[in-house]
Amino acid sequence: MDFSSFLTSLGTSFVIFLVLMFLFAWLSRRPSNHVIYYPNRIMRGMDPYEGIRLTRNPFTWIKEAVSSTEADVIKHSGVDAAVYFVFLSTGTVYITVNYLKIEGIGKCNCKLNIHTHELEIGALGILVFSGILLLPVLLPIAYTAKNKIDANETTSEGTFNELDKLSMGHIAQKSDWLWAFVAATYWVSFVTYYILWRSYRHVSNMRAEALMSPEVKNEQFAVLVRDIPAPEKGQSINEQLESYFKAIYPDTYYKAMVITNNKVANKIYAELDGYRKKLARAEVIYAESKGTANPEGTRPTTRAGFMELIGKKVDALEYYDKKIRELVPKLESEQKIALKDKQQSAAVVFFNNRVTAAAAGQCLHDTMLDKWTVMDAPEACQLLWTNLSKNFYERLIRQYVVYFIVFLTIFFYMIPIGLISALTTLANLEKLVPFLKPVLEQSMIRTILGAYLPQIALIIFLALLPSFLLFLSKAEGIPSQSHAERAASGKYYYFSVLNIFIGVTVGHTLFDSFKAIEDNPNSVFDVLAASLPGSATFFLTFVALKFFVGYGLELSRIVPLIIFHLKKKYLCKTEDELKEAWAPGDLNYGTRFPDDMLVLTIVLCYSVIAPVILLFGVLYFGLGWLVLRNQVLKVYVPSYQTYGRMWPHMYNRVAVSLLLYQATMVGYFGAKEFIYTPVLIPLPILSLLFIYFCTMKYYRFFQSTALDVACRELKETPNMEGVFRSYVACSLSTEKTAEVVQFVDDLAHVTRPGSAV
Amino acid sequence: MDFSSFLTSLGTSFVIFLVLMFLFAWLSRRPSNHVIYYPNRIMRGMDPYEGIRLTRNPFTWIKEAVSSTEADVIKHSGVDAAVYFVFLSTGTVYITVNYLKIEGIGKCNCKLNIHTHELEIGALGILVFSGILLLPVLLPIAYTAKNKIDANETTSEGTFNELDKLSMGHIAQKSDWLWAFVAATYWVSFVTYYILWRSYRHVSNMRAEALMSPEVKNEQFAVLVRDIPAPEKGQSINEQLESYFKAIYPDTYYKAMVITNNKVANKIYAELDGYRKKLARAEVIYAESKGTANPEGTRPTTRAGFMELIGKKVDALEYYDKKIRELVPKLESEQKIALKDKQQSAAVVFFNNRVTAAAAGQCLHDTMLDKWTVMDAPEACQLLWTNLSKNFYERLIRQYVVYFIVFLTIFFYMIPIGLISALTTLANLEKLVPFLKPVLEQSMIRTILGAYLPQIALIIFLALLPSFLLFLSKAEGIPSQSHAERAASGKYYYFSVLNIFIGVTVGHTLFDSFKAIEDNPNSVFDVLAASLPGSATFFLTFVALKFFVGYGLELSRIVPLIIFHLKKKYLCKTEDELKEAWAPGDLNYGTRFPDDMLVLTIVLCYSVIAPVILLFGVLYFGLGWLVLRNQVLKVYVPSYQTYGRMWPHMYNRVAVSLLLYQATMVGYFGAKEFIYTPVLIPLPILSLLFIYFCTMKYYRFFQSTALDVACRELKETPNMEGVFRSYVACSLSTEKTAEVVQFVDDLAHVTRPGSAV
Repeated sequence: MDFSSFLTSLGTSFVIFLVLMFLFAWLSRRPSNHVIYYPNRIMRGMDPYEGIRLTRNPFTWIKEAVSSTEADVIKHSGVDAAVYFVFLSTGTVYITVNYLKIEGIGKCNCKLNIHTHELEIGALGILVFSGILLLPVLLPIAYTAKNKIDANETTSEGTFNELDKLSMGHIAQKSDWLWAFVAATYWVSFVTYYILWRSYRHVSNMRAEALMSPEVKNEQFAVLVRDIPAPEKGQSINEQLESYFKAIYPDTYYKAMVITNNKVANKIYAELDGYRKKLARAEVIYAESKGTANPEGTRPTTRAGFMELIGKKVDALEYYDKKIRELVPKLESEQKIALKDKQQSAAVVFFNNRVTAAAAGQCLHDTMLDKWTVMDAPEACQLLWTNLSKNFYERLIRQYVVYFIVFLTIFFYMIPIGLISALTTLANLEKLVPFLKPVLEQSMIRTILGAYLPQIALIIFLALLPSFLLFLSKAEGIPSQSHAERAASGKYYYFSVLNIFIGVTVGHTLFDSFKAIEDNPNSVFDVLAASLPGSATFFLTFVALKFFVGYGLELSRIVPLIIFHLKKKYLCKTEDELKEAWAPGDLNYGTRFPDDMLVLTIVLCYSVIAPVILLFGVLYFGLGWLVLRNQVLKVYVPSYQTYGRMWPHMYNRVAVSLLLYQATMVGYFGAKEFIYTPVLIPLPILSLLFIYFCTMKYYRFFQSTALDVACRELKETPNMEGVFRSYVACSLSTEKTAEVVQFVDDLAHVTRPGSAV
Repeated sequence: MDFSSFLTSLGTSFVIFLVLMFLFAWLSRRPSNHVIYYPNRIMRGMDPYEGIRLTRNPFTWIKEAVSSTEADVIKHSGVDAAVYFVFLSTGTVYITVNYLKIEGIGKCNCKLNIHTHELEIGALGILVFSGILLLPVLLPIAYTAKNKIDANETTSEGTFNELDKLSMGHIAQKSDWLWAFVAATYWVSFVTYYILWRSYRHVSNMRAEALMSPEVKNEQFAVLVRDIPAPEKGQSINEQLESYFKAIYPDTYYKAMVITNNKVANKIYAELDGYRKKLARAEVIYAESKGTANPEGTRPTTRAGFMELIGKKVDALEYYDKKIRELVPKLESEQKIALKDKQQSAAVVFFNNRVTAAAAGQCLHDTMLDKWTVMDAPEACQLLWTNLSKNFYERLIRQYVVYFIVFLTIFFYMIPIGLISALTTLANLEKLVPFLKPVLEQSMIRTILGAYLPQIALIIFLALLPSFLLFLSKAEGIPSQSHAERAASGKYYYFSVLNIFIGVTVGHTLFDSFKAIEDNPNSVFDVLAASLPGSATFFLTFVALKFFVGYGLELSRIVPLIIFHLKKKYLCKTEDELKEAWAPGDLNYGTRFPDDMLVLTIVLCYSVIAPVILLFGVLYFGLGWLVLRNQVLKVYVPSYQTYGRMWPHMYNRVAVSLLLYQATMVGYFGAKEFIYTPVLIPLPILSLLFIYFCTMKYYRFFQSTALDVACRELKETPNMEGVFRSYVACSLSTEKTAEVVQFVDDLAHVTRPGSAV
């Protein structure tokens, strides 16, 4: 790809982005689309336009995004979303806004709400601060260098000549100008330290404030207890829990809820729920059929056999009703069985104040670590019930097995893909799926399939990878959804950095230059020096093309919109089904974040080698910030709250990328035969020290709640019975409150006198 | 040293041991020596012979030692001493006793109290179990091997031929007999795993039982708070502590005591104390001078100048009395100043129950780890007051500086010693200390000094090393004496293993064989294979000679006895001075343990190469167990209690030695050109896994108190005022109780109503 075609595709993507943005502006104003563009506001019971001045201006959303504060984000989408923005960072926006103001644009009437609160800065800030110094200094040096020295170096010939001139590859070996690049390497590192340090403190304060909140949060009164030893004979697990925790916390222990094996109950409950939905749907269809032409209506029918696809035709309404009446007692008896006989060695224990719960989550209870493991309880909605009863050693072994599988996945994922594509050759396909034969015999389809089958296997693999990694993380025995997503996100990050970034760089270097090295083994450094900037142009294209189309699609929500309208038209009959169709889901930063990190890693690593990449990095994170700010405020609804527990992971990944960048630079300066390369050696050491200090100072608060934070006053005395009930699994609770109370009492067995608030 | 001279010196040491033992039996029966041989019993107010049948049998002490139980040790010397015995281990004793019983000796009347409680096993157990299999199997193999294959190998010629025949060096290269040694390597490793695992559990139970004790232990009600941030304006540190901890622990907070800078007060107090002792002494001298010849007596005199050596003569009684009367008000005013103006950023905080104190010591209090650091309070007697107020970062930096100095000490200690010996040449000595010139001119002294000055410097260095390491450990900012001693012990262990064990082996290999390697570089493996057993004979001598003389001196307590009698005769006048002269001190396992570990490391590393060493190892630990059991039950008095916190350190050191052993074996089999050497590779991996699991399961309870243990019932309601007062520094408390209360109130400032028990 030469420079003009790069510019062309850049221009095209930009045009696509603009088109999508105008589409968004137009579509989002139609009331029938509001559930797609404002679901967050609708679900919170707000008017979609509340607090927004209606204009026909397609850029209004930008103004809204820029003028929103961190407090708005926390209000609409919680601390976790705000933390993600700290990572994406508002640094440039702040700076840009101030700059614009100074430059006179501030005098025009576009009243921008300038943030007066503490500067939040993250990835964007790193790139902006780096760019401010690097672009005006390094680009002229690189550009003028070649004019002086005209050695016959092997830069990526014919491709991107104009950009190559702006890269470090253009500087001659051993040139004194390299000192400027050394200084730039230090500058980028120090900027990163400064911003990471500030951000960590900022996020820590944000977390503290959220946890100090006077609102009653159920999970702050509970701890999760695992690895409960077998009770003594004649003692129920509940009695055992009661006597154990009452001895330690005589005044603050409230109740314990033993985790039960709900597999069967869940299955019945899901079946029951399905029939209820179907019944509601059939009723709507029946009501609709009662037109003027047919005042009696047509009673819908279904089949009584497997999957309702075979068997004799029956009246749907009656059939579903019968099924429901059969399942309700079945569920009730199973609930009783589960509560009585399927108790597991785990429990949620409730305390009547936050300090005790926070302290209990941090303390060693038994002398052996593998018994009575106590940890902060996650929210009830994100408990992974089946994992709770896995014992200490099972968890440990599962964890290492999973790590090993992930290791294999990262390093040898090409092998199964190769195998699958070998097995799914055309000949095999014809044998396995004979009815496809006539299709496969078409010569065009044959050619396309023949050429693309391996790529298709790869694409399918990459598309399934996040789910596969999430599945693996859950298999580790992690107790909460959020924790599993964090773990999966980490695995995905290492996969992308190792395979995409390092893979492409090394691949590019090896394959393009194998011949040159074969001819003259000593030229390996020259080749490396020439290849790194070559890969830079590849990544520049990657970053540049990725964000316009990606963020355009994100903003316009074309795909969810089409799916929603299709479902609405052909599938949804009841109100509930409709609601399900437009449910926005959450920000899902578990998979979003590793993608961002890949871009940040690439930009950071090439920031000094090819500073132009910084511009695209700033654009990526700036645009991302704008688009996602809009989405977080109006679209996505968080499905859980972790109060910023994702931050240490983000911090660690940025720190790893920084180390990778520093190692790359040491290697690259070495390849440039720059004899003062050792002046860069202190950098990685400094980074390790920085990481160590930063983690030590801040990390523990992200593991557990500081008591100083937990001891703040509450707005009201917590309703402990309500807190307790919020943890009852839905398959164990029934609609009638009386029955819930019955079950709850079954669960708690012995209630402390006077503890019911 | 050839075999016969080895046997001679072994015999000599044995005779020395026997002589010392009979000396002990004779001396310990003389009532005037009881304070030296039974100080533990005397200090506990027991009769020296209580519960002991008096006989003239010089072996009685052995019977007493063997028949004593772990409970006796805990009663007399605390859990820490018992833990040391778990390390030394009673395994063999148990086995031996049972064996003897079976063999018929049990039928005779020497009623041995056989332990029915859980088998305690440690270093001794490892060696015994290893020896049971290794000696009968490997020795015949090694001895017969050479007879078959008569290659011209270079075993350490002329020295220890008989022993060499019993070592693995005697087996030919690539011999199939090596498989037996492979099996032996595995056996020793598994024995060590088994014993370490059992011992860890046993010690953990012991610690739990001691901490569960219904006795009120002051330190269990207190936590140490460091890094207290500067209080707000107008607020005292006491008020700040009060408001902070009362918010978190509203029901259980009792009082806080701010640490003050007592440097000046301590100095005055020490001076005052000195004068008081001198006054008491002078009074005794005056009373004694009142004989029949001189009924008035002679009033003792002293000098009023520097160190009481110069200046005009004065009446001692009057002079001391005047000084004391001067110092008392000075101390009192300084006490007030310290309490008011010299408050530091550290405090001891008291709770009125054990669970809260144990929980507080484990919890994060502030969101930042570098503020409000809370940890379990050490006993008042072992607080290192000056370290308490050192802040988080100062501690961190000090720690790393100390680690660096220790690193330098371990690897480069020869350099300063070389420098010192270079500076203290005879010529320099003559210049520096001219008055020694006549002595130094004596030709014999000249020769001796010339030859031995460097060695003397080395001996002085090695003698001072433990104190130097303790000084360094204290300089790290560690808050308690026991912790500092554990840290120093670890440093000392690494010093001895690296310098003595590895130093000697490598030195032996390198220096002896440098020529052979120079001639034929490929012979390096042959040389190594030949040298390891060579070093083994050196270490065999080392171990064999060390214990008889060392333990003989330990048992007979000749040196303390002589010192005591000299002091009693010439120096001590008052009762207090006499008590000071026979005060036995504690077991001091901080320096004792690294020595044992060095022996264990050596024996373990050579257990397969030269199995005979196992016999001497068993003798060393068996004799050590006997002698120290006697000393612990009758002599030493522990100066602090840590409830077995030393154990994880012991465990770690044994584990490190095990790894060293396995690495040695892999290397040695490699040197034997045994092509199946890789079958040993799983061993170090297995060891690392074992260490990881074991530490994970057990270690946390040694860091902090499990709540299940802390919540046990107390015998009586603790007298919180007494607990509080036990932490007042002696230089801040005065004799008059009323004044103490005054100071205590100054310290606590605001007392909770109703909290004074």
